[in-house]
Amino acid sequence: MFSIRPLNLTLAPEIQHKIDHKTKPLGSLGQLESLAWQIGLIQQTLTPELRRPHLLVFAADHGIAREGVSKYPPEVTYQMVLNFVQEGAAINVFCRQNGITLNIIDAGVAGSFAEYPAVIDQKIAPGTRSFLHEPAMTGPECARALEAGAAVVRRVAATGCNVLGCGEMGIGNTSAATLLMHRFTGLPLAECLGRGTGLDDAQLRHKAAVLTTAAATHAHLTAPLAVLAAVGGFELVQMAGAMLQAAELGMVVLVDGFIATAALLAAAQLHPEVLAYCVFCHQSDEAGHARLLAHLQAKPLLQLGLRLGEGTGCALAYPLLVSAVGFLNEMASFESAGVSQAATPAAS
Amino acid sequence: MFSIRPLNLTLAPEIQHKIDHKTKPLGSLGQLESLAWQIGLIQQTLTPELRRPHLLVFAADHGIAREGVSKYPPEVTYQMVLNFVQEGAAINVFCRQNGITLNIIDAGVAGSFAEYPAVIDQKIAPGTRSFLHEPAMTGPECARALEAGAAVVRRVAATGCNVLGCGEMGIGNTSAATLLMHRFTGLPLAECLGRGTGLDDAQLRHKAAVLTTAAATHAHLTAPLAVLAAVGGFELVQMAGAMLQAAELGMVVLVDGFIATAALLAAAQLHPEVLAYCVFCHQSDEAGHARLLAHLQAKPLLQLGLRLGEGTGCALAYPLLVSAVGFLNEMASFESAGVSQAATPAAS
Repeated sequence: MFSIRPLNLTLAPEIQHKIDHKTKPLGSLGQLESLAWQIGLIQQTLTPELRRPHLLVFAADHGIAREGVSKYPPEVTYQMVLNFVQEGAAINVFCRQNGITLNIIDAGVAGSFAEYPAVIDQKIAPGTRSFLHEPAMTGPECARALEAGAAVVRRVAATGCNVLGCGEMGIGNTSAATLLMHRFTGLPLAECLGRGTGLDDAQLRHKAAVLTTAAATHAHLTAPLAVLAAVGGFELVQMAGAMLQAAELGMVVLVDGFIATAALLAAAQLHPEVLAYCVFCHQSDEAGHARLLAHLQAKPLLQLGLRLGEGTGCALAYPLLVSAVGFLNEMASFESAGVSQAATPAAS
Repeated sequence: MFSIRPLNLTLAPEIQHKIDHKTKPLGSLGQLESLAWQIGLIQQTLTPELRRPHLLVFAADHGIAREGVSKYPPEVTYQMVLNFVQEGAAINVFCRQNGITLNIIDAGVAGSFAEYPAVIDQKIAPGTRSFLHEPAMTGPECARALEAGAAVVRRVAATGCNVLGCGEMGIGNTSAATLLMHRFTGLPLAECLGRGTGLDDAQLRHKAAVLTTAAATHAHLTAPLAVLAAVGGFELVQMAGAMLQAAELGMVVLVDGFIATAALLAAAQLHPEVLAYCVFCHQSDEAGHARLLAHLQAKPLLQLGLRLGEGTGCALAYPLLVSAVGFLNEMASFESAGVSQAATPAAS
């Protein structure tokens, strides 16, 4: 569906040379160096630029939320979208701080935002069906959701944006993400499961029982798109479409926490090339996320014990991307600054 | 010498209540929540503000550098100060990005900056003596260095600054920091030792041998100030003075990597209350730093494999402090946003 170019590594030695000749000990900027290298390769330049960063928050409701898998009632999805519109949520604060344009997308919330033009209407349906005994969405709904996620990214790219993160809001969506992780990594369900917004032990056991049943319901499905439709959610599928479109357009893709990484995992089942465009912004406190990142061989930038979603990890990590590009473009080299390089072993 | 108030915890329950009623699951902003709590307590307010952030880079030379303990020749200290003045170093880039005022301080460099008025002259002497067989500095020199570090902080505070980080430049200063850590933590020298700017195995063995001799030379000293004078450096002592003065003035103190944390460790020998004012910005890749942070029971904000010094970890972590204060001041509460709180176990 998407045509994502594998990263062209021709420039890699030149970028590495530029990094290594900055006035600092070799490798001393750690992960910022690999980040600068990656962004240089994505943009195919020795002087990358981050332009008009955007954060897209996809919101949707989940039929599975009626099964008592979340600490919060389903209507919180709708209420939190209004909170985004009124600029009172964490993601509003962090985007404002870091100069990131925030777009709020109704991917499938059970409620109307007709009065709120700031909400982009990409509603596939007012929430998914409960995937306990039937697929969360139909195949055509899944296809429409992928395309809707892609479409919003094309509009954002047209503004000149070349770096984009995806966030989400959807009561019940750690359940969907857990099943996607379970199916696409092959890890046991128990290793993919977590407390979401803060379940206690009894609630966690209940969630485990519900998801065990759901996993069995859909165990016969194998095609990635069929699994995604069966246990996904409208915000998850739109995020997958958004990430794939962003990679196709050569953008830097910021990956948030557990839900966003599960969406990426699904996207990578369809187009593994997407991964080269991804910056893993943080490791969430949600139990499965560390394992999911390890599965993707991803090294996150932040480990702050966040478990909020909304794209907050992307917004918080964004200044580090600016720093990575900044040191590559603005630092002096040993030659230009007249600084002596490391002594040879014999001379030191 | 300094009069540092222990944190007054009277406001703690009110700050925690404010954090807990923001529109997010309880605890879901992880370390940003403890950071907001700490800054609120340091400033004794529910609405903290970060004003005119400053980064002070203290530079000095070390007699021990002549013993071949660094990969770089000693003249790099002088050259890098010029690089700071010409705004070509990593710390210049990151401070510019994040709106941090950078001050460069000659604490004891072997060379004159008379032609460079941007360099603040607090030179105690043109480098320390080699502490291999004699103390690095005299007692009066150490006292003058502590006071000089404090004096520059008083001047910075007069501009309205209430958040301050210390960085350093000094070829050979991981050796001094290693000995300070060894003496003030009681950990074996081998556990405090690291590769600095990038020593290979043979160079590291040589450094270990030099520092073992130096440790024996000064093993009879027990008073903290005597140890600090014996194995410290002028930038290390000025940083200790700066941190103590900043805490006395109720500022938020940003702690950088291995060297800066060793300076803080020395400061805390004199006034343990300083620790409550400290935000540990990152865990360096220098081998001893993780153990030093553990000794101080400190949880750093970033772990990016940095090992550059200059205060770069402070400058890179600073946006996270802005985020912590921002969410506390700007996020809506459940009440104000009309968002339902977590269901009780029975209802979920």
